[in-house]
Formats: sequence, C-alpha cells, structure tokens
Amino acid sequence: MPQYKAPLRDVRFLLNEVFDYSAHYAQQPNAEDATPDMVDAILEGCATFCEEVLAPLNLSGDQEGCTFNDGVVTTPKGFKEAYAEYVAGGWQGISHPKQYGGQELPMSLNLLKSEMMGTANWSFTMYPGLSLGCMNTIFQFGSDEQKNTYMPPLVSGEWTGTMCLTEPQCGTDLGQVKTKAEPKGDGTYKITGTKIFISAGEHDLSENIIHIVLARLPDAPKGTRGISLFIVPKFLVNKDGSLGERNTVKAGAIEHKMGIRASATCVMNFDEAIGYMIAEPNKGLEAMFTFMNTARIGTAVQGLAHAELSYQGSLPYAKERRSMRALSGKKDGDQIADALIWHADVRRMLLTQRAVAEGARAMIYHSAKIADNMVACVSKGDKTGYEKFDNELGFYTPILKGFITEMGLECANLGMQVFGGHGYIKEHGMEQIARDARISTLYEGTTGIQALDLLGRKTRPARQEGPRLLQARPAMEVADRPDHAARQQGPRHRERRLL
Amino acid sequence: MPQYKAPLRDVRFLLNEVFDYSAHYAQQPNAEDATPDMVDAILEGCATFCEEVLAPLNLSGDQEGCTFNDGVVTTPKGFKEAYAEYVAGGWQGISHPKQYGGQELPMSLNLLKSEMMGTANWSFTMYPGLSLGCMNTIFQFGSDEQKNTYMPPLVSGEWTGTMCLTEPQCGTDLGQVKTKAEPKGDGTYKITGTKIFISAGEHDLSENIIHIVLARLPDAPKGTRGISLFIVPKFLVNKDGSLGERNTVKAGAIEHKMGIRASATCVMNFDEAIGYMIAEPNKGLEAMFTFMNTARIGTAVQGLAHAELSYQGSLPYAKERRSMRALSGKKDGDQIADALIWHADVRRMLLTQRAVAEGARAMIYHSAKIADNMVACVSKGDKTGYEKFDNELGFYTPILKGFITEMGLECANLGMQVFGGHGYIKEHGMEQIARDARISTLYEGTTGIQALDLLGRKTRPARQEGPRLLQARPAMEVADRPDHAARQQGPRHRERRLL
Repeated sequence: MPQYKAPLRDVRFLLNEVFDYSAHYAQQPNAEDATPDMVDAILEGCATFCEEVLAPLNLSGDQEGCTFNDGVVTTPKGFKEAYAEYVAGGWQGISHPKQYGGQELPMSLNLLKSEMMGTANWSFTMYPGLSLGCMNTIFQFGSDEQKNTYMPPLVSGEWTGTMCLTEPQCGTDLGQVKTKAEPKGDGTYKITGTKIFISAGEHDLSENIIHIVLARLPDAPKGTRGISLFIVPKFLVNKDGSLGERNTVKAGAIEHKMGIRASATCVMNFDEAIGYMIAEPNKGLEAMFTFMNTARIGTAVQGLAHAELSYQGSLPYAKERRSMRALSGKKDGDQIADALIWHADVRRMLLTQRAVAEGARAMIYHSAKIADNMVACVSKGDKTGYEKFDNELGFYTPILKGFITEMGLECANLGMQVFGGHGYIKEHGMEQIARDARISTLYEGTTGIQALDLLGRKTRPARQEGPRLLQARPAMEVADRPDHAARQQGPRHRERRLL
Repeated sequence: MPQYKAPLRDVRFLLNEVFDYSAHYAQQPNAEDATPDMVDAILEGCATFCEEVLAPLNLSGDQEGCTFNDGVVTTPKGFKEAYAEYVAGGWQGISHPKQYGGQELPMSLNLLKSEMMGTANWSFTMYPGLSLGCMNTIFQFGSDEQKNTYMPPLVSGEWTGTMCLTEPQCGTDLGQVKTKAEPKGDGTYKITGTKIFISAGEHDLSENIIHIVLARLPDAPKGTRGISLFIVPKFLVNKDGSLGERNTVKAGAIEHKMGIRASATCVMNFDEAIGYMIAEPNKGLEAMFTFMNTARIGTAVQGLAHAELSYQGSLPYAKERRSMRALSGKKDGDQIADALIWHADVRRMLLTQRAVAEGARAMIYHSAKIADNMVACVSKGDKTGYEKFDNELGFYTPILKGFITEMGLECANLGMQVFGGHGYIKEHGMEQIARDARISTLYEGTTGIQALDLLGRKTRPARQEGPRLLQARPAMEVADRPDHAARQQGPRHRERRLL
C-alpha cells in the first residue's frame, strides 16, 4: 500500500525556483498574509494532516465504501473524525473572504492544499471539494441575505454543499434538464425532480448540506436558455442561523462504482423541496459556467494526484522486488536477482510516472497563478485584466483537464504494471489508484468534451487570445532565473529520489 | 450490461473468406471430422452455450465473487451448473485424442471455442482453461500410466488441472523457485512449499484437481536448471481410477483482485504432499516452455474478447443515448438531441474497438492455423516442419500477447468512455470489462516480458526465421481469393453493423 509522503521538495522547487510565487503573492491585493513563512507553514501543516490523517484512510475507505440505508449515508470508518479535524484546522476557508470567516489567502494555496489532500485520499477530498462550487456560486451570485446565511458555515466546513446538475437523461447536455421549479408565491420555489451522480449529496460528515440545483421555471424557454439556479438546503435555516425543518430532498440511493468508493455518489430526489432562486431567472447555466474552468482544473489535479501516488507506490517496490538480471549486466551481484528498478522497461515506467507528476504539477501551478490574477482583477475592478486572464485560463483548462487526467490514468496503470501480478491484488493498493483515477476522464466533461471545448470554443477566432498568449510566453520561466545554473549542476541530487 | 452475441458472421468471414480454413482442415491428418458442416455446428452450439449459459453469469459472477472458508472455495451461483453443462457438452476435449475420450478435432477449433466462451465470461473460462496446460503437460511428458490415469477425466472435464509455477518471491524469474521435492524412496516425492496466484487451484466445480507443480529436488542445481515437474493430485487416485486419500495440498486463501473475481486465484500450500515426477529431473522448466506459446496466445485471446465485449456493450448505448447535436449538423431532428453515435469522437472510439476486435481475431486465427500445422507435423513425425512452424508461432506469440492485450485494455477503457459517467457504475457492466481486462497485460508474462522475448530471443540471429517468414508472407491473403472483389463491393453491408 503506497505510504503517501507529501512531495514538499518538488512543490517548493516549483513555487520558489520556477514560478517565483513569493513575488507573485507580493503583487496580489489582500495577500499580505501570504508571506513565504506563512505559505511554508501551510504546506507543512497540510503535509502532516495528509500523511497522518487522510492517507491511512485511503485503502480502508475503498474497502468499506459508503453504505446506504433509507436515505441515510454512512461514510467509512474514520472519515467523520478526519473531516472534523479538517474543519477544526480551518482548511475549508483558506482562500475565502475573512468577512465569512475565511483566511482570504490566494486561490492558488487552496489548489496546493487540494493537490496534497487529493493525493492522500481522493475520495475524502470530494466532500469538501464539492462545497467549493457551492460556495463560489453563492458568493458570486447570491443576495446579501443568502451570503450571510450560507457562507459562514460553508466556509468553516460545518456545512457542506453540492452541485446538482446531472439527471438520468442528461449529463453533458444540460439543455435536457427536466427538474421543475414552481413559484410558491412567497418568493420561494417548489423544486421537483431527480438528480443523479451527486457527489456528497448525502453523508454523515456535516450538520447540513446545501444543494445548488439546476431547474426550470414553468414558463422557461426550452434548452439551455431556460435553466435557473436554486439553493436547496437539506435543513431549512432559521433566521438566527440555526437548523429548522427538514426539507423534502432525500437521497434515493448511492451508486456502486468502480472506484472512489468512499465518496458518496447519490441519486437525489427533490419532492417539492423548498428552494431559493440564485442569480437571474433562466441564466443558471451561464452562472454555472463561470466556475467551469476552476472545477475542471480541480479535476485535472486528480490526474496529478494519481500519477504521484502511483509513483510513490511503485518506486519502493521496484527497489525491493528482485527478478532476473539486468540486460546491461548484473547489478546486485550479492543477491539472487537484480532489483526491478534495474530493468529498462521498469525505469521507463517509473520515469514516465514521475515526468507526468512533475510536469502536471508545473502546468497546474502556472495556471493557479492566473486564477490568483483573476481574483485580483475582481477586487481591483479591472474588467479588461480579468478578461485577459480568464481567456488564458480558459484556453489552458481543457488541455489541463483532458491531458493530465488521461496521463494520470496511464500512470496509475503503469504503477500496477511495475507490480506485475501483485498490482492486481487489492491489498497492495495499486489497483485502487487505477480504479479511482478512472473517473477523472469521465466527470467534469469527458476527454472528448474537453477536445470540443478546446477546438470548438477556445481556439475559435474570437477567443484566439489563448493560443497567442501561449506563443508569446517565454519558453521556460526557470531559464531566466539566476539560480538556474546552480540547479543545473545538481542533477545527481534530483536523481537520488528515483534511485 | 452487454448482452453477448457470438459474432458468427465475423468469425465465418475470417474462416471462409480470409483464411480458407476448409482447405486448411482438408490438409490436416486425422482431421477428417472437421468438415465445414461439423465446424459450423460446433460454432453454432458454442454460440448458444455462450449466449444462454455463460454470458448471463458474467455480471453476477463478478458481483458475488468466489468465497473462501477453511480451504474450501465456493464459486459464484450458477457456475457449478454451467460447468456441468460444459462437461456434458463435451467441450473440454474437442481437440484432445480420441484415445482419452476427446474428439481429436484441430487445435484451432479449441481456440475458436475459447474466444467465444472467454468473451461471454472470462472468469468462467479460467477453470477449464487451466486444465489445458495440465493436460498438455501430462500428454507430452507423462508416462503411459500417468496418461491413462489422468487424461480421461481431464479430457472429459470431470477433473480440472492447474499450473503451479509462481511463488511469493518470484513469478517471471522462476529460477528463484523454492518448493522442495524429496524422494520418498518408493518412486514418489514429498512436495513442500507455497505457490501463489494459482488460478482454479481450489473450487467446487470438479471432483478432483490435478496440480502440475514446479519444485526442486534436494540435489538440484541452483536457478532454472534445477527445476523439476510433478503431478500433485488433490485426491490421490486408486488403481481403478476411483478417488483415494485426500492429499496434503490445501488452499490457504484466495486473492482479492481488481477483476476476474469469479475466477478463484489461490494460495496453495503443499505440506509433504505426494507428487509424481513428470518429464526428466531438472528439466521441468524446459518442458514448461513447450507450452508457453500456446498459453500466451490463449491470453492474447483475452484482449480480443474484451475488445469485442466492450464494443458489443458500447454500440447499443451509443445508438440509444442522446446528447447535444452532431458537429456536422442535426441528425435526429425529431428528437431532443442526436444519438451519441453521431459524434465524431464516439465514432472514433467505437471504430477503434471494432478494428481491434476484428484485427486481433484475424491475427489469432492466422496463428491458430500454425498451431494446427505443428500438431500435424508431430503426428507425421516431421521434425523440420515442426521447427519451422514453431519458430513462426514463437515469433508471433509475444506480438499477439503484448499487443492484443494492451489494445484490449484500451478498448475496454474506450467502452467505459462511450458511456460517460455511467461507464463508471457497476450495473452497466462496462467497468467490469476494464477490470477483467486489466490482468491480461500482467499474467503469462507482462508486456515488458513479451518485449524482452521478442527482441531478446525471437529476433536474435539464430531465430531470425520468424521475421523472415513474416516478410515473405503475401500482404493479405484475402487479396488472392476470387470472391474478394464481391466483398469489396459490399462496404455498406459491413457498415450496417456499426450504424
């Protein structure tokens, strides 16, 4: 079973040597707290939490899975305690406004956190991960009252959130959404319909669950232009913020999945559940697409996570397990056979995993800076700047999501391959990585959808700024940095991690 | 859940139009029974058994898996009855000598049978499949007494067999085998050691299980030159062929695997179990390698099987499920959206699956003719001819095993991808195909081992006949056949299967 160690050395190399995050943070408004010391303390704290709390629950979580009983979902043993620790550590709100109890640190730090936590235990990360989409929607489109009601407990993590988009007949093609929203006359709506594949739709980790639901008003136009967005809490919220009546939204089942088995994927039945409209009528899908880029980059992180975890699992095995002699001559002469790592094909597999993990991490950290810049433009009211960064990130997004998740799956398979037949056995944990990774090319838009996005939208004449920016970018930022020469002299130092 | 339909049209196209199997069978000695009518009757009978008996047990077998209780392995519901039907149908011995109760039809027919049965239910096929290796070993290297004792019930299928090679410390590198064989002085041996990953090592399908075991004599040289081969029956066999005492070989556990969960993969503990030497002392590995080619081609069939099954699963879904409009313009205008199959990337995936299935089937059927020719050379005492065909098959083997299993896994993944998020859900059966397929690039030599075999052994100067034969072969045999032109005119006919 892979023993996750947060790769802080690789993370710091990118932050400090390649992308100069300290200079980047120094330019961000409201980021005075993101000092190098603070960033480092967050990385260390996150690494400890991942290694000591989340990683040990990864295999057991897969084995046990979630259980369902008459609308109640129980997460695997230890998940509740781990989530409580996550909340107590203030991890949920690190990039959210201080006004709602967050730490208001740059967005990129939240992505760094997600990478480590996701590598340690992707299923666990799905619960707080889905809250992000919910929080972002309420923060950007909610009324002050909605924000004051829902943001503080979501930012603290005491409540979690979901995104209820998919229905049995449609996933990608949301124009087919059928869920109905009927005005009750008092400003609220009765939401009726069935949503499927709702991650964290029901579970036992938090007091309340806030669903963001796509539904149609009675007079809505057909297709994508007739979809509105609603807040539907599991428990209605009283004026004083305490929990009120149980709303008529209930989990009908959980899915039995190939992987991420500790993540509850729910069928959610809305039976005239009380909902509150958010954003403008019939503009729900537009609002939703505001976050598509960040959600998809969040999924790209899964490719990185599984390439890294698989590498961390297969490397020690390749050093320990002995089989035959290397083609280039006997290597461990005092042993019955040479270690696997001396065989060329095994080295190829390990180095592929590592190249993907390191390359994907660099791609994502580069994109995370752009996300920070977008937030900065919002707070400065710089619309032109925002659009420029949004175009750039939009261009990268399908590449990151499509390429990194496909490569992550490939690396997870290579990890099994290094183990030979033992890779197929559950107790080693390598096949779990391949099963967990398999969802990443399917959700948040399949790889084919990423291709359509890239070619059909992001490289069309009106949006060509993306590829232009890419061409204009210096080949590799690291080359301009004075300490690059020093690093160049140190390849053996880097090599040691592999050998 | 894919509803397996035996692709008889494709099978017949290859047999009759491409490879002219009737002419091939007419040239085989002892193959007078393999008339076109007989071959067709076998194909039809096999198809019915696969569609009606084996296929319905595929998903349920995966869900239930095998269970283990103090050395006793129980196969999933329905397997016992299906195996009894398999035995009653005489399927096990179709290519084995009449002398032992078989039908003595050509080897290739057995491969055609394995393809269909393996596609319908790969886990099931593992039980009779392992018997083949055991029977071949006893038939080629056993004494007359051993053959008379073990062959008839193995050929009928009343007993099954295994190949006990792998140990905890070694799989590929069999020179590390530690299992001991001590002479008892009466011509028998006490076998002591632990074997792992023993498919069909223990189960409830047959009365007796005959293990072929690699072990070391006390004075054996180190490494691969000190390995001998033993027959170790689960129940000792009395002179009259009835079952005697229970031997001290016992399953210690079954593995919890990613896939092929209905196939019992056992840890087998030999505790001074009585064994009978087969073949010469210290020549066990050589004997074993005689069958490596056929065993590996048997595994190549798994790549074909899973490409075919996955295609059969994703094709109807792609015709039924609707999402968005095709880029090339609205296709199903009267519907809310176009069927998935109109989308270019979905067509690419389906056509890849189909091309792999059809191409792999052609590669395997070509190789099966060579296997027939080898058998014919044996019966004619034609050593030179045998070596020529053996070289040719040996050259193809790592290509077939390496390439087809890797492509089969790719196709199984494409099948999930066509289903989108639904591909990840167990009830649709698509993720099972990917999990079942995943073992194929690991067992019978990983893909890396196939590469070593191809480059290190099969293309070395002494063995270069293989590649030379490939170069000398006409580009595509079908081109020489008179009815080729007629088929050329019928592309729409073929296309219909996809659309």
